[in-house]
Amino acid sequence: MQRRVFDEDHESFRQTLRSFIEAEVLPHYDEWFQAGMVPRELYTKLADLGLFGISVPEEYGGAGIDSHKFYAVQYEEAARAAVTFGGSGVHVLLALPYLKMLATEEQKKRYLPNFVTGEEMWALAMTEPGTGSDLAGMRTSAKLDGDHYVLNGAKTFITGGVHADRVIVACRTSPATENDRRFGISLLAVDAHSPGFSVGRQLDKLGLRTQDTAELVFEDVRVPAEDLLGEENQGFSYLGRNLPSERWGIAHGAYAQAAAAVRFARDYVQQRTVFGKTVASFQNTKFALAACKAEVDAAEAVSDRALEALDGGVLTPADAASAKLFCTEVAHRVIDRCLQLHGGYGFMNEYPIARLYADNRVNRIYGGTSEIMKTIIAKDMGL
Amino acid sequence: MQRRVFDEDHESFRQTLRSFIEAEVLPHYDEWFQAGMVPRELYTKLADLGLFGISVPEEYGGAGIDSHKFYAVQYEEAARAAVTFGGSGVHVLLALPYLKMLATEEQKKRYLPNFVTGEEMWALAMTEPGTGSDLAGMRTSAKLDGDHYVLNGAKTFITGGVHADRVIVACRTSPATENDRRFGISLLAVDAHSPGFSVGRQLDKLGLRTQDTAELVFEDVRVPAEDLLGEENQGFSYLGRNLPSERWGIAHGAYAQAAAAVRFARDYVQQRTVFGKTVASFQNTKFALAACKAEVDAAEAVSDRALEALDGGVLTPADAASAKLFCTEVAHRVIDRCLQLHGGYGFMNEYPIARLYADNRVNRIYGGTSEIMKTIIAKDMGL
Amino acid sequence: MQRRVFDEDHESFRQTLRSFIEAEVLPHYDEWFQAGMVPRELYTKLADLGLFGISVPEEYGGAGIDSHKFYAVQYEEAARAAVTFGGSGVHVLLALPYLKMLATEEQKKRYLPNFVTGEEMWALAMTEPGTGSDLAGMRTSAKLDGDHYVLNGAKTFITGGVHADRVIVACRTSPATENDRRFGISLLAVDAHSPGFSVGRQLDKLGLRTQDTAELVFEDVRVPAEDLLGEENQGFSYLGRNLPSERWGIAHGAYAQAAAAVRFARDYVQQRTVFGKTVASFQNTKFALAACKAEVDAAEAVSDRALEALDGGVLTPADAASAKLFCTEVAHRVIDRCLQLHGGYGFMNEYPIARLYADNRVNRIYGGTSEIMKTIIAKDMGL
Amino acid sequence: MQRRVFDEDHESFRQTLRSFIEAEVLPHYDEWFQAGMVPRELYTKLADLGLFGISVPEEYGGAGIDSHKFYAVQYEEAARAAVTFGGSGVHVLLALPYLKMLATEEQKKRYLPNFVTGEEMWALAMTEPGTGSDLAGMRTSAKLDGDHYVLNGAKTFITGGVHADRVIVACRTSPATENDRRFGISLLAVDAHSPGFSVGRQLDKLGLRTQDTAELVFEDVRVPAEDLLGEENQGFSYLGRNLPSERWGIAHGAYAQAAAAVRFARDYVQQRTVFGKTVASFQNTKFALAACKAEVDAAEAVSDRALEALDGGVLTPADAASAKLFCTEVAHRVIDRCLQLHGGYGFMNEYPIARLYADNRVNRIYGGTSEIMKTIIAKDMGL
Repeated sequence: MQRRVFDEDHESFRQTLRSFIEAEVLPHYDEWFQAGMVPRELYTKLADLGLFGISVPEEYGGAGIDSHKFYAVQYEEAARAAVTFGGSGVHVLLALPYLKMLATEEQKKRYLPNFVTGEEMWALAMTEPGTGSDLAGMRTSAKLDGDHYVLNGAKTFITGGVHADRVIVACRTSPATENDRRFGISLLAVDAHSPGFSVGRQLDKLGLRTQDTAELVFEDVRVPAEDLLGEENQGFSYLGRNLPSERWGIAHGAYAQAAAAVRFARDYVQQRTVFGKTVASFQNTKFALAACKAEVDAAEAVSDRALEALDGGVLTPADAASAKLFCTEVAHRVIDRCLQLHGGYGFMNEYPIARLYADNRVNRIYGGTSEIMKTIIAKDMGL
Repeated sequence: MQRRVFDEDHESFRQTLRSFIEAEVLPHYDEWFQAGMVPRELYTKLADLGLFGISVPEEYGGAGIDSHKFYAVQYEEAARAAVTFGGSGVHVLLALPYLKMLATEEQKKRYLPNFVTGEEMWALAMTEPGTGSDLAGMRTSAKLDGDHYVLNGAKTFITGGVHADRVIVACRTSPATENDRRFGISLLAVDAHSPGFSVGRQLDKLGLRTQDTAELVFEDVRVPAEDLLGEENQGFSYLGRNLPSERWGIAHGAYAQAAAAVRFARDYVQQRTVFGKTVASFQNTKFALAACKAEVDAAEAVSDRALEALDGGVLTPADAASAKLFCTEVAHRVIDRCLQLHGGYGFMNEYPIARLYADNRVNRIYGGTSEIMKTIIAKDMGL
Repeated sequence: MQRRVFDEDHESFRQTLRSFIEAEVLPHYDEWFQAGMVPRELYTKLADLGLFGISVPEEYGGAGIDSHKFYAVQYEEAARAAVTFGGSGVHVLLALPYLKMLATEEQKKRYLPNFVTGEEMWALAMTEPGTGSDLAGMRTSAKLDGDHYVLNGAKTFITGGVHADRVIVACRTSPATENDRRFGISLLAVDAHSPGFSVGRQLDKLGLRTQDTAELVFEDVRVPAEDLLGEENQGFSYLGRNLPSERWGIAHGAYAQAAAAVRFARDYVQQRTVFGKTVASFQNTKFALAACKAEVDAAEAVSDRALEALDGGVLTPADAASAKLFCTEVAHRVIDRCLQLHGGYGFMNEYPIARLYADNRVNRIYGGTSEIMKTIIAKDMGL
Repeated sequence: MQRRVFDEDHESFRQTLRSFIEAEVLPHYDEWFQAGMVPRELYTKLADLGLFGISVPEEYGGAGIDSHKFYAVQYEEAARAAVTFGGSGVHVLLALPYLKMLATEEQKKRYLPNFVTGEEMWALAMTEPGTGSDLAGMRTSAKLDGDHYVLNGAKTFITGGVHADRVIVACRTSPATENDRRFGISLLAVDAHSPGFSVGRQLDKLGLRTQDTAELVFEDVRVPAEDLLGEENQGFSYLGRNLPSERWGIAHGAYAQAAAAVRFARDYVQQRTVFGKTVASFQNTKFALAACKAEVDAAEAVSDRALEALDGGVLTPADAASAKLFCTEVAHRVIDRCLQLHGGYGFMNEYPIARLYADNRVNRIYGGTSEIMKTIIAKDMGL
């Protein structure tokens, strides 16, 4: 169905991005895939395209656009080529909202210009080995020593951690109080080039192989007090404020992957012949792809509706959860069926569908699992 | 998510209809259910509410509203109570488009005022015993004898056939030509009170038990030539013109049934206790209903988007097929899971969920099966 | 795959039963379906065939066969014709095990000969309006008055309740004790022809329309003390002892319905033509039926394996739960897809597939819902 | 349910194999995983365990056991640890049947002893780049030149191709005849150490990363005529004779992976805590695993039944297809749900469930896709 979320600017940006991917990403992608990460230069090139400044206010070098529609285009074009931009998503979609919400005027002046140019790539460090999603139980600590915090501990599952120049680290600056386990957590914007800051092992993942995921280790890292984000000890309350937007992002990415999978499969079955007929000519192929298409249409309707609500400031947590749950489940089913239509080639990583299959699996897990989405929806239903 | 398709007029109509159902339909519904049809008087009452005139031009007694939104409200309110209005849907959603498209000015003046008041209930007679969906193979024939056609044959699957006062009958008025099997079919608006017109057996269906479905038999029925709709022998070309709208209607009805099922199940599990706890308090219940809710949200997004497209005149056959396929598959899954949450009561027809389960099964079949929807979508994808 | 559970005796019994169904059941089935129950005479005829005596010891007039294989054949042949034998299943599969387990020698002599000849049809009355599956909360009571119990209360969901001559009624004969809510329940074999015993309304069900389901009302019914089954006040401990066998029965019945659905659909698509081709000639039809066949094969493997275990006395509650869960879920999926292949005819009750669809829905509910099966399996897994 | 396919010998072999995996495989597995293949020495060790000689006749150094039960144990133990044995499966389950069927006495004496000791590892080379499953269209050719064939061409998707010492290569030795495209294909047992024989690139796959898959290139490879297997030009008729056995193998492997996934997930949820409770304590976890268990039980029943039929020589192609279709679909669903219960860890390759997820995807594709299985089943149903 005709979509009504995009205007000419979005479509023009789409063309720019599509050309960029064809010229600068696809020719090297196998190499990056084997290396397990994108090269550092990619970030500079993406910054040159304007990707990092879209929603940064103009006074700090950005375009000051208060809409997620350009991000929607990015998701769609990356999925269309079955590529990732490494840690760019974390930089723009996860880290930036913290800066816009918490950074002081002084900090914004210091951080944002380099953020926009890609000179400083940002990452987020929340999860610790062993504590999982129970963030209040974290053990990484920062003790104030004069005008510096001294940071010790370790974090894991850090997307973009290898190349990150600055990392928002959640750490304990005071003990929890009796009434509030969540008290005492602070957020520090840690310079990754500080002494004592090291990148531990890189994790080998089922998919998203060009998005490096690392462990970080902090040994007496000295962090200037002016790199504290928000109020000391109130860090826990900042976490999760951006979740509806983040979940819409995963929903839209999943939708875009499903749409891409249908496109890849359609192209494949039209050119592939078996026993003298194209695979496309079999009724099973037609029906399988048509069923996928109807589900992708639905995911598009859901995600576009959520996008309008998000831009309009009315996307509730339950609506975001519903969109994420639905779109990621659709993507799982659709990509699996599209891979199947590729036969043995679907198992080869040189075919985009194999990469989409592996990449997509985490969508039902990160940003809150499908089970957590159901918990949120059920609560909203009064259950 | 907040819906944006309805305005205050629609919501006010919704309240009127809801009150009407509570006062005039629900108290008698068990009786109608056992009888296998709604009483003739219901149609007059619905007409009094204005239901039959919504999209009839004002000069013929209608409200002249060129939108499907009031119909959407009807679907939603009927589903909400798990009731049908018998043959009303056929009258307004299937028969009326033929009249608006084909009737001459003279015919409109003759037909529409009684249509609006419900004095004349209309039905459609296409399918014949044995020929199924291959309409070009029909055997009911009408031979011109002076200024009357003489109609002979039989039709089946006629919804609303028992009470219908006038039936649009597709019949053969000329033999097919060598090049065109479809030539020679005409549409007659047959007065059901004519001699030789009789209602055969009423069909016993899995669901939709208050929507009577009958066979009709024509033995030398004399039909005045001025009751020919459209051009003689060109009838086949008229069939199916209204399909996108009809399919959106089924999609929206299915969505509304799924939404109603979730509501019934939520209410049931909140009041029902087992072993001292409400059924709602079990995690499985919460998760099952949340998963249903996310699918219903998606169906709503799809059907509302299709509704706007329909009202805007841009709903393509493939988009309508996609919406019907998706919404009816969702409804099937959702209603099944909601019934399951009712335990043994879900198998009892006095519980609305049991009726929804049975009624809903035909949604994936009529108006074109899911398989036909897939065929249409695949073709549109270039497969 | 070749089955190895049956020998020649079973196959000969199968032929007898199949002929009986063709001659004595199918010609009248539409009538019974409209009436909402089978005629009383059917039970006598089934008794004449030997159906009721299979596992009754020879000294009481039965065949003394300690195996469920003949019951398996019955399930398969009833499903094959999409018919039920009314309350026969309750008589033989639910009531008889109680008699074999609890009846004294004197009682067996009194009850079993008439049981075998069908002169006395038995039913079970456990559930009460409002208490559901929490049997310990039942309110039907029996007070000893001399050598009679005086029974008062009401029961619901009584399969075969209309024609039953004797009903095993669970009732409270003593108050629960502080430590044991379950103490105080007794089982009485109540003569349905006693004064004060009446059949309340017959319930209108989604499916199983020839298996009458009724409410029973007891007003000062005098029940001779010699009709107490087992020990007074210990009734609760007897309930559920037969559950693995009962659940295997539902599993096998569901498997048999699924197998029958595939057979009906195969026959239908082979003879039905659309646009000049049989429905069977479409790849989608072939694939849909092949997918169903593979699931039916699996259900057969599961249920046959459980049958051997049951006959060998080693079918655990968790294994029975696993078989019931699996086979009933398979049947649900398979019958739905087979109905779909029938198009509009699948919605007509004159087609067996429509009846199977409606009948089958309760399999995932009664004898313990799918959710209860999962609870049992999880416990057995140590979860 | 208690299984009845294994005796004490099988269970003793199971223990041996399990210990071997713990001692010799698991400690090195991460390394092999990164390397993309198992080391050559593993094959010698497996040979020492007796794995390669199980069904080789005693006169050639084997154990002469004509049963697939020991192979069933192997599948189960490899899956239990989420490991592969590289190309061992091809060696024993794909190549050996060709040798037993086609090799002359002289060839058996030459080939089998080294086969059993693992000194010569065998592989199969059928598929060519570009021709896919249409084997009759192959372009690799062998021309007789004196007492040698001169082999030219290329093959792809060769499991175990990197380490293989001898490869059964299908090639064209004569042109097809007008009536029979399949005429002219021969099978050669090519020594991989011959001049002109080279291993092309190794394929990067979604899963099965320790099972090397390579392209092979033949440039004027001289193959002694005594390495022709079976009759010249009749090679096509030999292909596929072993398919029921091969498909049972995939079915059983898939079942074993699903069973292993349930075990891994159960262990994980029992030790993993969130918010102070084990994941196992949530009803959703219990129900998800119980549903998986019931499906695994069914796959076990199906595959064990097929195993008995295979050993008894009565496993038909349609029965094997049904078992493969069913077990691989079950494994897909089960492993996905078990991964989900692992949360973010399920996406990390160091967790066995992530490897099972990726490995398992090819089960529905190789040895004939699910679509081909449906074609075979449908044909057998008379469709």
